[in-house]
Amino acid sequence: MPEFRPVVFIGGILVLVLAATMVVPALVELWLDADHAAEYLPCVAVPAFLGAAAMLATRGTPLKLGLREAYLLTSGVWIVLPLVAALPFMWTVPNLSLADAYFEAVSGLTTTGSTVLTGLDGLPPGVLLWRSLLQWVGGIGIVAMAVAVLPLLKVGGMQLMKRESSDTSDKILARPREMATWLLGIYVGLTAVSAIGYGLAGMSGFEALNHAMTTVSTGGYSTHDMSFGAFSATAQWLSVVFMLAGAVPFLLYVQVVRGTSGFVPWSQIPPMLGVVLVGGLILAFTATQAGLGLHDSIRHGIFTVASVITTTGYASHDYQLWGPLAASTVLMLTFCGGCTGSTAGGVKIFRWQVLLRRFHIIVQEMIRPHRVIAQVYQGRPVGPEVVQGVGAFILLLGGVTSLTTVALTATGVDLVTAFSGAATAITNVGPALGGIAGPSGTFAPLPDAAKWILAFAMLLGRLELLTVLVMLDPGFWRR
Amino acid sequence: MPEFRPVVFIGGILVLVLAATMVVPALVELWLDADHAAEYLPCVAVPAFLGAAAMLATRGTPLKLGLREAYLLTSGVWIVLPLVAALPFMWTVPNLSLADAYFEAVSGLTTTGSTVLTGLDGLPPGVLLWRSLLQWVGGIGIVAMAVAVLPLLKVGGMQLMKRESSDTSDKILARPREMATWLLGIYVGLTAVSAIGYGLAGMSGFEALNHAMTTVSTGGYSTHDMSFGAFSATAQWLSVVFMLAGAVPFLLYVQVVRGTSGFVPWSQIPPMLGVVLVGGLILAFTATQAGLGLHDSIRHGIFTVASVITTTGYASHDYQLWGPLAASTVLMLTFCGGCTGSTAGGVKIFRWQVLLRRFHIIVQEMIRPHRVIAQVYQGRPVGPEVVQGVGAFILLLGGVTSLTTVALTATGVDLVTAFSGAATAITNVGPALGGIAGPSGTFAPLPDAAKWILAFAMLLGRLELLTVLVMLDPGFWRR
Repeated sequence: MPEFRPVVFIGGILVLVLAATMVVPALVELWLDADHAAEYLPCVAVPAFLGAAAMLATRGTPLKLGLREAYLLTSGVWIVLPLVAALPFMWTVPNLSLADAYFEAVSGLTTTGSTVLTGLDGLPPGVLLWRSLLQWVGGIGIVAMAVAVLPLLKVGGMQLMKRESSDTSDKILARPREMATWLLGIYVGLTAVSAIGYGLAGMSGFEALNHAMTTVSTGGYSTHDMSFGAFSATAQWLSVVFMLAGAVPFLLYVQVVRGTSGFVPWSQIPPMLGVVLVGGLILAFTATQAGLGLHDSIRHGIFTVASVITTTGYASHDYQLWGPLAASTVLMLTFCGGCTGSTAGGVKIFRWQVLLRRFHIIVQEMIRPHRVIAQVYQGRPVGPEVVQGVGAFILLLGGVTSLTTVALTATGVDLVTAFSGAATAITNVGPALGGIAGPSGTFAPLPDAAKWILAFAMLLGRLELLTVLVMLDPGFWRR
Repeated sequence: MPEFRPVVFIGGILVLVLAATMVVPALVELWLDADHAAEYLPCVAVPAFLGAAAMLATRGTPLKLGLREAYLLTSGVWIVLPLVAALPFMWTVPNLSLADAYFEAVSGLTTTGSTVLTGLDGLPPGVLLWRSLLQWVGGIGIVAMAVAVLPLLKVGGMQLMKRESSDTSDKILARPREMATWLLGIYVGLTAVSAIGYGLAGMSGFEALNHAMTTVSTGGYSTHDMSFGAFSATAQWLSVVFMLAGAVPFLLYVQVVRGTSGFVPWSQIPPMLGVVLVGGLILAFTATQAGLGLHDSIRHGIFTVASVITTTGYASHDYQLWGPLAASTVLMLTFCGGCTGSTAGGVKIFRWQVLLRRFHIIVQEMIRPHRVIAQVYQGRPVGPEVVQGVGAFILLLGGVTSLTTVALTATGVDLVTAFSGAATAITNVGPALGGIAGPSGTFAPLPDAAKWILAFAMLLGRLELLTVLVMLDPGFWRR
């Protein structure tokens, strides 16, 4: 039985922080003389009260977290915070169900980017900013989780990323607080550079800020129904660069800026760029076949692949108009993912690297049965528990995608929307395929039950599956 | 570099055997006074000449097969024999391309059951019988491969099935020739019982014989475009029983008949029946929602699931009319498969058992990190190399399905047909989903390129993937 008190205490702090963040859209509404500033009062007050109450009720608890408490805290926070984050959607946007509001909040914090809101261009600026802020806050939370928590939880082969395993003498940064400061600084810096770039490429200040936040977090929320189709070719190319910058291991930036050494899984980057190039050219080919000019085709092709594999989910063009090869390519790339240690979701490049190398070794050992080949990753030994973790992760992802698909069809959703919707939710990409929730549609027409299922799928994917699923075992709650 | 001469010699024998088999449809055409008997002359003569030539050219070779020769022989035979088997399609059916004929022959020998032939009811009896015979011969070939070859090749965790590993004293049958005789006897017996049953349920003698051969081999070719929709409810229920009988480990029959002991993976059977029941009831529910009566719904639901998971591929009703939940359920069950050691294809129950048990152990070890739990299967230790083989097999199946889907869409096939077609080919089930190649359609409208791709996918699946893929490694051909 895990110890609940420290978990509730830390959860209370995070609820307070998120409530405080809502002051930002409220102030923007006030400043722009928009009508909705007052509606943010209860949005801030209710979670502030509850968060404070949770902290008071559990104050004085020693903040020692065992393994089970770490699972419970990690999963619990990601399930509860969207309830808080949903309040501005509930209380400032008309005609949203609770399912809609929770879906939108989960999609925000997990940096998925699927939306149930239509007519974005006409929504109050506070709500648009809140969506972007959610993704931005979620993004840094994901980096922190990937760097500090998942390697300890040994989920999906992430133990390979433990920083202290082979480099005790020259760690990147010894103290966690110092590292957190550096990561946050890098994140703010990247966002600022993106915002300036977008501004220079012709976006308004509000557009530039919002898209900078949802690009660097590889989130994908836009302030326009047309997403990046509303902006210039220059802005689209810049976005490709910034999306990829958000999908790179963030410790690499710290290492480059500080000149320190230590293990950073940088070798994911060349394959990621290779996939963008090859996939982009395949999509560009399909776009030319559909009648687009060569330059536009290359830009939209590269943009689409960068958007999908970084799990951002912006669209610059409706790639479904390019024919079945474009659709199947996008669907497969949905499972690719960016680099571990970044804001990107999905399977992630390092897992594919570990898996492909393993297959090569299996084939070698089939041909010469008495040979034993050691597996390494950037010089680190890849033990059997890492290989098992990676394999289990990808298999589980396939299994959860399948079950989610079946569950969605049980609510009446068609097969293409169900399968692509399940895949895009679990990998935190954003748009599905088909006529409803494709890159130029939204998830709004789906039944509420389907939205709950998809929200849970986004959380499962974001938490790398096993972090949540371990809690389904009765043994987790015993003794 | 593998030794080619013994491989060519044994291949020559098998070509001769297949050529001799063609005498059967030729005699039937003669006997029924149909018009096509003469056309079988070149069908028999050409491969007989080539097979004999291959044997003569390599006679006197010592028939010693190393590991590489075993891979080459296993894969080579399954790739070459369909070329021979395609001759009657080429030379007795008008308007078939080479791709059509090869597709149909591969689909036959691999007991997949996908077809490019329309108007089955009007085809000459010789061709209909040849299709059934191909599946019947293929079926016993698959049992032989699963029992005698794959455990030695250590493909996909099949080393767990090695008969001599833990029971040296009381093997089921010591001598291979004796075992082959028993297996063939069981197979003939099952087919005879099925034929008699079908006859009693109202089929004509010709129908009963053909369907008996394609049921026990879990192949799925029918003599009617309507498949089992053309037959009585009794015949459909009987078919459920016979399909399941063909998907059970065949050594179990030998064990029961002879009263011997030894390792037979019988524990796959209860979960297989459980899936039929649960899946069947889900489908029955969707059928009632679509307006069918309760009894019809239950029968069609159970029939469909039995047909899919045994990888037979008969249809008693077009389940696509039952809505998206039916389609998604059938698609997921396509990856289930029957029992290892039977004629069924797909992933197979024992792999899911090993995998699910492994997941349970992983979760246990996450909760209590210092615990180590040993995995067993029917009392046998399941070593890490078996777990790796099983995981690699399923991951590879997913990867090959994805790449096949992309390749099919590149030929212009729509996404639903491409994905479900890839899945049904690789798992050797038969029908796809969608408006073209669904249970009431055929693969005939697809472009030739798509048919070649699908034929290769059927072979890959039948050979359990790695048996073929190992030959893509340059190291296989070296030294």
